[in-house]
Amino acid sequence: MTDNGERITGFDGLRGATAMAHLFLREVVRPGDRAVDATCGNGHDTLLLAQLVGPEGKVWGFDIQEQAMVATAALLEGAGCTERVELRHAGHERLTASVFAPVDAVVFNLGYLPGGDKGCVTSPHNTMAALSQGIKLLAPGGRICISLYTGHPGGMEEATAVESWAAGLPPKEFHVWSCRQMNRSPAAPYLIMVEKAH
Amino acid sequence: MTDNGERITGFDGLRGATAMAHLFLREVVRPGDRAVDATCGNGHDTLLLAQLVGPEGKVWGFDIQEQAMVATAALLEGAGCTERVELRHAGHERLTASVFAPVDAVVFNLGYLPGGDKGCVTSPHNTMAALSQGIKLLAPGGRICISLYTGHPGGMEEATAVESWAAGLPPKEFHVWSCRQMNRSPAAPYLIMVEKAH
Repeated sequence: MTDNGERITGFDGLRGATAMAHLFLREVVRPGDRAVDATCGNGHDTLLLAQLVGPEGKVWGFDIQEQAMVATAALLEGAGCTERVELRHAGHERLTASVFAPVDAVVFNLGYLPGGDKGCVTSPHNTMAALSQGIKLLAPGGRICISLYTGHPGGMEEATAVESWAAGLPPKEFHVWSCRQMNRSPAAPYLIMVEKAH
Repeated sequence: MTDNGERITGFDGLRGATAMAHLFLREVVRPGDRAVDATCGNGHDTLLLAQLVGPEGKVWGFDIQEQAMVATAALLEGAGCTERVELRHAGHERLTASVFAPVDAVVFNLGYLPGGDKGCVTSPHNTMAALSQGIKLLAPGGRICISLYTGHPGGMEEATAVESWAAGLPPKEFHVWSCRQMNRSPAAPYLIMVEKAH
């Protein structure tokens, strides 16, 4: 349940990078907050954010693929959350063209759309541009969650770029965590979480 | 605040392994639950567990050092949590001699007592014995949090033993995470979290 009594997506333990990202998000995103899903994909993160911010909050959702926009819109519609979400059929490198500060959370789910065109993947160049924009939008205590996949072509290159960026963030201003599943394949998705200090 | 309205230790963001451990604990330990602090140290984790389980819950606290027992008892006394905690002046390798299943959380803070005798450190042999016992006590959904320090003599050897154990846990039964701070020294403390699947 969220603070405003809406039922949120079922929780089945910390069984993967998405579950870990949702833990970090559920802890900081509150009713009335503002959040960004930089990569809507099938809309699951967008829906969680929409449920957490509640009817008084606001979520911006980005995706470059039409199929993702349609899937996300349908998911939001089914949960009655359409009005609090502004969907943008655009790449996340255009974040600050639509979103204004401060936001309490930004979510990135890198790689390709599950069930979609595996040739259409996020690119290091655009991802780094989006991260640079996203971190400037963050309110004190706000978090960026980045789920990384290294199994597809270009995935490792993108993960390396994100890791290098994250490792260079000033420790007094940002708490930066890498969370990996120890008893899974080294190619299993993992999470980088950046929290802006209070 | 805990669910039963008691004020818990202040939260200043995810600024270190202890803060991350507390996030994982706060999410699963509920009023009436049972938990173990396998290494009381100065008592901060014991106090958090005591506040989370509330007056109807139960916490067992272990430490081999008299100084740790005294510090922990004083901290609990000051917070009015003495009655719900059973302190054992004993090594954590004797966990199952006092604690009976199921428990919802077990906390390990390895290394030496801050401000205490730096020659008195947890040993890989005893730590591995305690982890083997702790994981058998765990209820479904329960979590073990292990804070690891590699900066003292023997610390790296102990961390390697714990990592090897954690990586070998069956993935269908346990969700096992390693959480490291990316923008800090490689010698910074880090966290291994083991969650028993539902």
